[in-house]
Amino acid sequence: MMRIAIDAMGGDCGPRAVIAGALAAARDLSIGLTLVGRRAEIRAEVERSRAKPRVDVVIVDADDVIGMGEQPSAALRRKPGASIRIAAEVVRRGDAAALFSAGSTGATVIASCGAFGMLKGVGRPALAATVPTMRGTAVLLDAGANAACRPRHLVQFAVMGSVYARVATGIDHPRIGLLSTGAEETKGNTLTREAHGLLKGASVNFIGNVEAHDVYSGVADVIVCDGFTGNVALKISEGIAEMMVGMLGDAFAPPPRAAGLQAARRAFRRVRRKIDYSEYGGAPLLGVAGLVVVGHGRSSAGAVRSAVTMAHRFVRHDMVRRIGREIVAQGAGRA
Amino acid sequence: MMRIAIDAMGGDCGPRAVIAGALAAARDLSIGLTLVGRRAEIRAEVERSRAKPRVDVVIVDADDVIGMGEQPSAALRRKPGASIRIAAEVVRRGDAAALFSAGSTGATVIASCGAFGMLKGVGRPALAATVPTMRGTAVLLDAGANAACRPRHLVQFAVMGSVYARVATGIDHPRIGLLSTGAEETKGNTLTREAHGLLKGASVNFIGNVEAHDVYSGVADVIVCDGFTGNVALKISEGIAEMMVGMLGDAFAPPPRAAGLQAARRAFRRVRRKIDYSEYGGAPLLGVAGLVVVGHGRSSAGAVRSAVTMAHRFVRHDMVRRIGREIVAQGAGRA
Repeated sequence: MMRIAIDAMGGDCGPRAVIAGALAAARDLSIGLTLVGRRAEIRAEVERSRAKPRVDVVIVDADDVIGMGEQPSAALRRKPGASIRIAAEVVRRGDAAALFSAGSTGATVIASCGAFGMLKGVGRPALAATVPTMRGTAVLLDAGANAACRPRHLVQFAVMGSVYARVATGIDHPRIGLLSTGAEETKGNTLTREAHGLLKGASVNFIGNVEAHDVYSGVADVIVCDGFTGNVALKISEGIAEMMVGMLGDAFAPPPRAAGLQAARRAFRRVRRKIDYSEYGGAPLLGVAGLVVVGHGRSSAGAVRSAVTMAHRFVRHDMVRRIGREIVAQGAGRA
Repeated sequence: MMRIAIDAMGGDCGPRAVIAGALAAARDLSIGLTLVGRRAEIRAEVERSRAKPRVDVVIVDADDVIGMGEQPSAALRRKPGASIRIAAEVVRRGDAAALFSAGSTGATVIASCGAFGMLKGVGRPALAATVPTMRGTAVLLDAGANAACRPRHLVQFAVMGSVYARVATGIDHPRIGLLSTGAEETKGNTLTREAHGLLKGASVNFIGNVEAHDVYSGVADVIVCDGFTGNVALKISEGIAEMMVGMLGDAFAPPPRAAGLQAARRAFRRVRRKIDYSEYGGAPLLGVAGLVVVGHGRSSAGAVRSAVTMAHRFVRHDMVRRIGREIVAQGAGRA
């Protein structure tokens, strides 16, 4: 039976949403869970859940939690018993097939790199966020695992993103775009100009630069960028979606048209939720030699359930090994 | 009489919208215009306009135009008679008080730096875009004049943005935020971490890092970032706003509620237009020793009219000199 390790303490909302969502997924998928964190709190949440009787749950003690505001590497040094580190160790030992955390992304990245190491030929891990587009979805990476990238890392992201898009969406030859400030090769910054040259020579279906306003138009299946840019791009999208939903009320008055307003509000909340990658079940951390799915800090139980389901599917598709093989085969390595 | 020089050939829509908008503004403000470009085309557009009889128009010949897709510095070298260069020369000679262009932003930046030089103590110019927020508006700079910035340039942007926000919005002590991937000083990339340290010591009302989803919530009056990040942030905002408006139709059916749908569509088009900085009259290019306002390539006649009105106001407020004095006074220089 497959087993997934859950950092039960991570997330802004505490263990309740995480445990409820993970139990719901485990019941559906007939898999086991290893819940890592403070035993008493975890046990109380498991007792509350009606899913428990049918789910094989193991609790592993971890007394510390890394807060969202803490500096991740310093906090991990200071807290050897942090739930994210212990949960990663559970996976490293082979006691679980995948790791899920809705806690500090930075801490999850560092703990995962430490426990699993990188795939051969990969220099930086990347968080692969799924974004909605006018034609379906696209994958944007790096969504924030690393602020500093070199051109060759963007090529590795393109190769990893290609494999991921094939596994996650079934597209045969995903179109790879490089996020930049203009369609021309010469546009952008030093990073994108150098990466553009390398991507033209790589064995991926590179379609060239993609300007930011085209991320959502669906011209590319996979969009690569450094983690600082990716984080800004996704978070500003959330921000403007929230503002647009907020402005809707003002725009309808006078005269108020209640039915239309309610319908429009619902519609836009739906779009806003879509932008929040937790709705797609979280974002896998690609490039590490273990399967890791990162949830949004504000993950609801439903989002956690999708994320655990996603982790289960990636284990079954042997995604980590496929990415590792592709990186070596394409010689995208030399990290 | 004040006179503003217009790159009449710039913009995706050709001279028609630019000339109509500039003439409308000039008539309202009782200022003169110097229209730079192909004389026959300009004359034809001026004849079409009913504003002409009351506006003092001078036409200056320029046979070349720099296209939106051309590499700006190469194109400027190849085309010494480009309208943007000739228009900048008109201002440099003192024959006009300000320059407006809706053409290639890159070419406008390079031509302006070449004609006017930089203000003493400023290392990089910055495009200052106005964005809507839940509480009003904010200024984001650099919106795309320069992809590569050093930490001290972000400090200069903060000083210039402060003066600009005071002139443009009347705020006494504008709150300055640094766009980054987390509120903590340690978050972000090398550029933002170093800039954060410098900004804490600068004589501006620095409120710390601002995450991207807070740009639109109005926590800061001025948000500084490098031009690559600023361009991505603004353009992805446009992209998601367009997608949200597009998705609205689907969300209302079935059953269609025509009145609500139309109202919601209008509301969201309004928001989308707000995001487009042309609606605020364009973005001034701060840091050069001359007054330059850049319009969006897709500027309508209405947007050009606002932009020329903006340029007129900044000339009257002596904005360039005030920025120059502030940079020197605050010792933010050492470019």
